[in-house]
Amino acid sequence: MSTWDITTIVEELKQARQDWRKSQHNFREFDGRELPSKNQVIQIAQNLCGILFPMRLGPNDLRQESEDFYIASTLEQTLYSLYEQVKLNLIYENKRTKNKDAIPEVDENAKRIVNRFANQLPQIRRILDADIIAAFEGDPAARSVDEVLLCYPGILAITYHRIAHELYRHGLSLLARLVSEAAHSKTGIDIHPGAQIGAGFFIDHGTGVVIGETTIIGERVRIYQAVTLGAKRFQVAEDGHLEKDYARHPIVEDDVVIYAGATILGRITIGKGSVIGGNVWLTHNVEANSHILQGDNQARYV
Amino acid sequence: MSTWDITTIVEELKQARQDWRKSQHNFREFDGRELPSKNQVIQIAQNLCGILFPMRLGPNDLRQESEDFYIASTLEQTLYSLYEQVKLNLIYENKRTKNKDAIPEVDENAKRIVNRFANQLPQIRRILDADIIAAFEGDPAARSVDEVLLCYPGILAITYHRIAHELYRHGLSLLARLVSEAAHSKTGIDIHPGAQIGAGFFIDHGTGVVIGETTIIGERVRIYQAVTLGAKRFQVAEDGHLEKDYARHPIVEDDVVIYAGATILGRITIGKGSVIGGNVWLTHNVEANSHILQGDNQARYV
Amino acid sequence: MSTWDITTIVEELKQARQDWRKSQHNFREFDGRELPSKNQVIQIAQNLCGILFPMRLGPNDLRQESEDFYIASTLEQTLYSLYEQVKLNLIYENKRTKNKDAIPEVDENAKRIVNRFANQLPQIRRILDADIIAAFEGDPAARSVDEVLLCYPGILAITYHRIAHELYRHGLSLLARLVSEAAHSKTGIDIHPGAQIGAGFFIDHGTGVVIGETTIIGERVRIYQAVTLGAKRFQVAEDGHLEKDYARHPIVEDDVVIYAGATILGRITIGKGSVIGGNVWLTHNVEANSHILQGDNQARYV
Amino acid sequence: MSTWDITTIVEELKQARQDWRKSQHNFREFDGRELPSKNQVIQIAQNLCGILFPMRLGPNDLRQESEDFYIASTLEQTLYSLYEQVKLNLIYENKRTKNKDAIPEVDENAKRIVNRFANQLPQIRRILDADIIAAFEGDPAARSVDEVLLCYPGILAITYHRIAHELYRHGLSLLARLVSEAAHSKTGIDIHPGAQIGAGFFIDHGTGVVIGETTIIGERVRIYQAVTLGAKRFQVAEDGHLEKDYARHPIVEDDVVIYAGATILGRITIGKGSVIGGNVWLTHNVEANSHILQGDNQARYV
Amino acid sequence: MSTWDITTIVEELKQARQDWRKSQHNFREFDGRELPSKNQVIQIAQNLCGILFPMRLGPNDLRQESEDFYIASTLEQTLYSLYEQVKLNLIYENKRTKNKDAIPEVDENAKRIVNRFANQLPQIRRILDADIIAAFEGDPAARSVDEVLLCYPGILAITYHRIAHELYRHGLSLLARLVSEAAHSKTGIDIHPGAQIGAGFFIDHGTGVVIGETTIIGERVRIYQAVTLGAKRFQVAEDGHLEKDYARHPIVEDDVVIYAGATILGRITIGKGSVIGGNVWLTHNVEANSHILQGDNQARYV
Amino acid sequence: MSTWDITTIVEELKQARQDWRKSQHNFREFDGRELPSKNQVIQIAQNLCGILFPMRLGPNDLRQESEDFYIASTLEQTLYSLYEQVKLNLIYENKRTKNKDAIPEVDENAKRIVNRFANQLPQIRRILDADIIAAFEGDPAARSVDEVLLCYPGILAITYHRIAHELYRHGLSLLARLVSEAAHSKTGIDIHPGAQIGAGFFIDHGTGVVIGETTIIGERVRIYQAVTLGAKRFQVAEDGHLEKDYARHPIVEDDVVIYAGATILGRITIGKGSVIGGNVWLTHNVEANSHILQGDNQARYV
Repeated sequence: MSTWDITTIVEELKQARQDWRKSQHNFREFDGRELPSKNQVIQIAQNLCGILFPMRLGPNDLRQESEDFYIASTLEQTLYSLYEQVKLNLIYENKRTKNKDAIPEVDENAKRIVNRFANQLPQIRRILDADIIAAFEGDPAARSVDEVLLCYPGILAITYHRIAHELYRHGLSLLARLVSEAAHSKTGIDIHPGAQIGAGFFIDHGTGVVIGETTIIGERVRIYQAVTLGAKRFQVAEDGHLEKDYARHPIVEDDVVIYAGATILGRITIGKGSVIGGNVWLTHNVEANSHILQGDNQARYV
Repeated sequence: MSTWDITTIVEELKQARQDWRKSQHNFREFDGRELPSKNQVIQIAQNLCGILFPMRLGPNDLRQESEDFYIASTLEQTLYSLYEQVKLNLIYENKRTKNKDAIPEVDENAKRIVNRFANQLPQIRRILDADIIAAFEGDPAARSVDEVLLCYPGILAITYHRIAHELYRHGLSLLARLVSEAAHSKTGIDIHPGAQIGAGFFIDHGTGVVIGETTIIGERVRIYQAVTLGAKRFQVAEDGHLEKDYARHPIVEDDVVIYAGATILGRITIGKGSVIGGNVWLTHNVEANSHILQGDNQARYV
Repeated sequence: MSTWDITTIVEELKQARQDWRKSQHNFREFDGRELPSKNQVIQIAQNLCGILFPMRLGPNDLRQESEDFYIASTLEQTLYSLYEQVKLNLIYENKRTKNKDAIPEVDENAKRIVNRFANQLPQIRRILDADIIAAFEGDPAARSVDEVLLCYPGILAITYHRIAHELYRHGLSLLARLVSEAAHSKTGIDIHPGAQIGAGFFIDHGTGVVIGETTIIGERVRIYQAVTLGAKRFQVAEDGHLEKDYARHPIVEDDVVIYAGATILGRITIGKGSVIGGNVWLTHNVEANSHILQGDNQARYV
Repeated sequence: MSTWDITTIVEELKQARQDWRKSQHNFREFDGRELPSKNQVIQIAQNLCGILFPMRLGPNDLRQESEDFYIASTLEQTLYSLYEQVKLNLIYENKRTKNKDAIPEVDENAKRIVNRFANQLPQIRRILDADIIAAFEGDPAARSVDEVLLCYPGILAITYHRIAHELYRHGLSLLARLVSEAAHSKTGIDIHPGAQIGAGFFIDHGTGVVIGETTIIGERVRIYQAVTLGAKRFQVAEDGHLEKDYARHPIVEDDVVIYAGATILGRITIGKGSVIGGNVWLTHNVEANSHILQGDNQARYV
Repeated sequence: MSTWDITTIVEELKQARQDWRKSQHNFREFDGRELPSKNQVIQIAQNLCGILFPMRLGPNDLRQESEDFYIASTLEQTLYSLYEQVKLNLIYENKRTKNKDAIPEVDENAKRIVNRFANQLPQIRRILDADIIAAFEGDPAARSVDEVLLCYPGILAITYHRIAHELYRHGLSLLARLVSEAAHSKTGIDIHPGAQIGAGFFIDHGTGVVIGETTIIGERVRIYQAVTLGAKRFQVAEDGHLEKDYARHPIVEDDVVIYAGATILGRITIGKGSVIGGNVWLTHNVEANSHILQGDNQARYV
Repeated sequence: MSTWDITTIVEELKQARQDWRKSQHNFREFDGRELPSKNQVIQIAQNLCGILFPMRLGPNDLRQESEDFYIASTLEQTLYSLYEQVKLNLIYENKRTKNKDAIPEVDENAKRIVNRFANQLPQIRRILDADIIAAFEGDPAARSVDEVLLCYPGILAITYHRIAHELYRHGLSLLARLVSEAAHSKTGIDIHPGAQIGAGFFIDHGTGVVIGETTIIGERVRIYQAVTLGAKRFQVAEDGHLEKDYARHPIVEDDVVIYAGATILGRITIGKGSVIGGNVWLTHNVEANSHILQGDNQARYV
């Protein structure tokens, strides 16, 4: 007999699961995994990094003359793997929203989505190239574009974000979120996959940055660690639940710089070319080319 | 002969270790590993996640009909592995505190502790279910409870914390700390295993959150990134060392919300239902249902 | 035929890469990997941790009586691996700066650098011992020095930093950065490898800490989470690009304490023994033994 | 460009594959893997060994008190994995024999087969116990039954055979063959899965043993290395191809012993209790209790 | 101190190595591995199997529509890896034979050899297809060509042999031998890489088959387990050592069948279409279409 | 509910195990693994190969200048691992033979045995060097001693045997057998660990060789594939069981050559310098310098 009372604990855990499932009206009748796999999705994101930057983020023993073979082979395999995860996401969405689509339709949708996603990859690469240049030019400590690509957490975060955002745009919010949380865990930078971000974007240091779902960011914007682009307050619907899916985060126009620790809340607009100082707390619109500093709060001696 | 002067370096490193050990009055006389293994402990925590949420955090190929078999088998193996780590922790504690308990007693204690720990698992699952519901209801960006469980770092942090806290309650501070630091590294959320936290707890985004050892948090509390629940100052004992083990962190009552960046220090009480605004700096008690905002520190134009 | 249009995507990605390479005037003519390997560098850093603290961070089954054998064998292998990465870094630097050194010279330089690096290891161990003592004595929650070494992210960060700084001192900025970003990803603590940091240094909690490239920190300094030691503004050279490599971060003298969230910017000096309060924003020199608190910004009720 | 002419070679390999497929009238129109996976099947066989002898062939860290949990969990997972391979085998068979069964029927058949297979496992264990006893009692070098189970290649071969034979009996010749070849590769003992073998069977040393598809072996039979139980000649059908599926190998009755190197060919019967000497060449029936020695072929001096 | 006297044993082992090296006049002065890597070579052989039969011996998750991508990518990588091993083999040969070729020449030679090897692959595939057909048609137990390719050790052996023979033809005897011994270990079939073997070759069961270095085998030959095609006696050179590299094994012409256990020794010729019976011992030429049986050695009763 | 009736099968398997254990009077009352681990033992044997021939069988990236460091570190770890397996073997033996030795004595014995074993390693290396030379000089196909060490299965078999025999000499028959069966599986050469074999021993090809427990082989002996050195018949004790542990296999004196397929049975002596021809069947003593050929059994035409 076991030292521990395994049987009782197993039984009680089962009871807990059943209570939960009942409370969720979720009787899960079909066989197999109905949810995308976190590990699979992370593997897909890593493969895509290798596909986008084969000699920097691809396998160590890759040589330049075989880049295209590597990309073709990895791309085929990765898109097929993505296609399976997309199907799982679509089935899950159908189930969650009580939509009873037949599997065949799911299949076709998944293929169409993966196709569109795949066709965006070259464009994503070009935008990321602009992001890398922005980082190199915006940080005096950066020695080379290669150092930026290999070492800067902000570049990792924006790469994952641009992948996640494509998935989000096709309604695959679960897959998108898995990708963005993988980047959050590695970098401390939390960008919701819904955020729209222009080219030449650079986050320096990055730990603690939060960018909300409906944020819109223009081109050549630069932000520092611990910046929040958040919602001011949540709207509550008539049934007492929070309203979802309405614009509640800032619009940041082209060429804005936001220094460390600044908090910008609500659907406000930061005008083109503005500079927001460190630790600033901002909840109203800002005209183009403004320079905003923290209020009168100088340190004092005791 | 080696290119590097290995022998000299090995010798000097040995000298450094000996000096350290002498300075620690720590002559380590017994054979074997006297410390728990970080990797083993992390593996135990991951297994427990799979046991608590088999279809979401268990192995990818698990099917619902074999949940109980999987749980029983993994639980038996995991508890045995935990039992071995608990023994190492107890032996280490005995040694550190010069307590010369015989190994047999350690054995018995370890078994009793693991038994109690195991029996708490169903209850932990039920509390985590409440945490998940709280996250889903508290975040307009959350699409489903499954997304919350799979993607939200706050859920990962509180799951690990509830495991770590059980270990801490049984005096296994080293094991507990290893678990909580594993979560800290993945999420940027630093909850000391000593903190007592009620059900329905939700941390959004989470990077930079710090919750101290003697913090007490009620039910249905919600906090955001970069919130600190810390100590105000440390008491120094007569021998010049810091005092340890006294209540020095806040009490947060039921239904409190604390927005991003707020700093709450010392053994103060935040009354039930209060809302603490972003970036607030707070070192005194707050009555129930208070709304606290940051002082007069609005951003200003230059 | 494939479901996706692999061939077209591969072609477009190739075009994107070619455009990038052209824009970088970087025709990469030689065979093989011209960049250090991130994975290799991380492995080297982990091995060095095991070499420095064999019974705590070395392999689980190591026994004390074989410490020296383990160290000698791992050190030899690790230094050789480092030597290969150093060569890659030197070649890359030569290429980046259009220096056409012959490979033989690179070889000799790499050997000399690795030798010097290796000889520093015992000294690094002794300084880290002082860091561990500082952490144990500076945190009331710390139960033992072993807990500090095994669990404290601040100790991991400073260990990696002391390794990275040695590499940086020898001009290996890419290797150094790879090491420091590995620590940043695990701990949320971002210390530029250029920073000079004295013994007995302790970072508690640590998430969000940023320490800039030209920072100088004395002995026995203690800092908390979300502290920034940053640059105030960047100097722009005549050609419109940022100037690099000039002193732009603070000097923090011996025995200073800096509480959570403080922001200290520019080439200013914080005098010996000073205490900087939480959330303080500081851009000017501070005399020795000063106590600086946040300005008049108490929280207010609404 | 690649050093090797990859494109041409790929093209020629494709041409070779197309020629082959055309010659096989095998246009493989459906998606996915149409064949069982060798690795999966080998994994299944290894799992079954652990299920049959948990404390000897199961995981190293298994403890006796958790045998049943381990078996239940592994069995569930293994049977499901087997079920998937059985489906692949059935689909392949349907395709190979132009049978156009719908997938649903395949599903049902696979479930029924796996069920029957699973129910045989306890009986297989009991027969293997008799085999182990036979080995222990038949070899003066055997020190214990545990040594026999852990070390004797003959026991490994007969264990795999008893599994393979069950699969063969259900028409899964491909799966059966994959299992038997795994044993052949490890032991040099080649038992066709079709052979019927009674309890208490022992092969000593075993390298070079060949036992044909239609062989029938009674109880308590013992054979040595390099024994062949083969077909004498093949029947050719009217269309010029070999006839398949007719009885062409020996019947060996109970309690027979066959010494090393003996060759026994054709559908002959070796009577109960007979002893066949080393190197004997035998193509005719043998009465019960016969002792057969090699002909007059003594070694001679030169 | 260690329980065992490590230092002394290490010292004595070193002395043993030095004595050996001295006795071999082998002062190994250059850095790095001077020998090909067994593991690398085995990996190369397995990759080549996948390249030759992608849907049968390639990765489990390969789909037919991506065969060519997989082949191109794997081929590129495998040829490069082979190229590195070829260089090591050439350097080793130069060293062994005191040939002091400069490395650059080795480089060029290696490239040329790998190129020729690669160009042979489509032809090797076509010959293997004939081997598979021969196995299917020659064994009444074979259910399908797929079973033959997946399960028959004789097919594995001939596949590895055809690869090894190509390497042998280019003077890479060490690489060739590593490949052939990998097959020997898996199948018990020992074919020296020097043997010349025509298409449509089939070995059934195979354990114990030995085919010597200078053997020549025609087309459509079939042999069974334990057949030896060996040398009769060795020629001793004037210096007392064995002569190497002269024709000393049999020539087996087209359409010959050799049954199990037959031993055929010396540079004799087995004429076209002959059948050699089981256990036959043969040391002289045999005319075309002969049927040879074992001498008068029938089993006898005791 | 599961598709298969797991619970019933688990129950029946348990019943089968209980019946077996009852029949074995084997009530296994103590906790933990009471048997050595096959995988551990195989790992130990592989490590010892690396220790004996570091640059040929050690890790691929080992460089000559760090041989001694590698050996010291691996030896320490391997001897400790061996020590744990030796203890398990001793405990098992005590239990099997009803010897109730206290664990402390087992500990001491294990240490003494491992010490003696370790001290034999340099001598084993020197004998193996002689074996390698014998192989190189005895096979016209051998190109170099390195090819012999890397590729010849006979060398692998004798290396494992010399390790296994040392274990056997210390009464560790289970460990010894695990080592010898590992070699048997890889090479098809089955040498009982009890066999005593002199230096300069060479087995060519080797598949099917069987060498029995009490065989004694002199120096410079050469044998070929499928040679059996076996027992003639078994002695039955008064209780009806086979007698164990008496001399029953041949004595082969120095400089004997035995060609492929020869069968030599019983406690006979093959005199110094004799040559035994292929397929010879031998059951009587042979004088020194004899040449024995197969009897009058020439192949005949039909």
